[in-house]
Amino acid sequence: MNSTNDTQQRILDSARDLIYSRSYSDVGVADICEHAGVKKGSFYHFYPSKRDLTLSVIDAYYLQLKEHLVDKAFAEDIPPLARIDRFGKLAYAFQKQLLSDTGRVLGCPFGNLATELSTQDETIRIRIELIFSKIQTSIRQVLREAITAGEVKKIDLEATAQAMFAYFEGVTLLAKSQNNPEILNHLLPAMAQIRITPTA
Amino acid sequence: MNSTNDTQQRILDSARDLIYSRSYSDVGVADICEHAGVKKGSFYHFYPSKRDLTLSVIDAYYLQLKEHLVDKAFAEDIPPLARIDRFGKLAYAFQKQLLSDTGRVLGCPFGNLATELSTQDETIRIRIELIFSKIQTSIRQVLREAITAGEVKKIDLEATAQAMFAYFEGVTLLAKSQNNPEILNHLLPAMAQIRITPTA
Repeated sequence: MNSTNDTQQRILDSARDLIYSRSYSDVGVADICEHAGVKKGSFYHFYPSKRDLTLSVIDAYYLQLKEHLVDKAFAEDIPPLARIDRFGKLAYAFQKQLLSDTGRVLGCPFGNLATELSTQDETIRIRIELIFSKIQTSIRQVLREAITAGEVKKIDLEATAQAMFAYFEGVTLLAKSQNNPEILNHLLPAMAQIRITPTA
Repeated sequence: MNSTNDTQQRILDSARDLIYSRSYSDVGVADICEHAGVKKGSFYHFYPSKRDLTLSVIDAYYLQLKEHLVDKAFAEDIPPLARIDRFGKLAYAFQKQLLSDTGRVLGCPFGNLATELSTQDETIRIRIELIFSKIQTSIRQVLREAITAGEVKKIDLEATAQAMFAYFEGVTLLAKSQNNPEILNHLLPAMAQIRITPTA
């Protein structure tokens, strides 16, 4: 990695870590530059604003979480509903690791930004909505396979995937609010059991 | 109401409305004073800091929501599980009203603060944890009656109340992230169906 890429990567990683562990509003460009060990001029060479950087952070973080959480959980080596359970177990392990590394359950990076910024920044809101939609598409795909495998019957596929994802976000929020990852361990096994039946 | 009480009330209401529609970090004491039409000296006469005011906002908002949402939903005129459905319907009507009044689904005021501040302000985190715990206690009471009425069997009472509340928070977060209250209308009927069974 050359030095330009390295500087940009450090800005990106610093913004990700600081915003995730604190909040968007609480972290300024100066904080990010200090954490990354770069000058402000360097920051603005790569990003016109904190918001533009945050959009890049969201995209980069999604690719990471997709690889290490979504794709790993939903791999086809086990039956469909067991994959949703595995998603919960991996999320639990992730928050437990964050607690061990930072002293805090940090919650969902996307849920955090959605909650903080949805009323304030339409561009960021829409980007998070897109990420949420991608995750729900992945859950829908698993549910489709669960239907084919006979594990699940007569559900509103789209609503059930949305409900499972909502439950995941809510459990993660609760774990953050209590700074206790065991809430994920205890409650996420119920995620795969949620069903929304089609309205007649 | 005398003028001292009136000034304090205006500060409290302004802080509630501004923080709820934006975020804690985004709203400063100057914003609150301007919105309330009071001088900074007046602010600090009543509250040593924005954080102290926010603790009062949380308590006051909880009493309001308890009266208009929790107690109204959980009144004993209908069967227990139907009360949980009514909780969902009232929450939907509330977010729809907020959308109509402000142009935005604002989410859960406590969930918002928990998400934004749990890693940053231990005093506020603990206060929100207490509010969350009170709401879960109300849900547990309904579930106890549902068991007595034979509507529900063999559940882990505490975990089921927690899971129902987590689902509610997650659905509300999703509705905020899409600025669409219909998500509550569509998904909250499944809240009363969530069960965590006791581990053997």
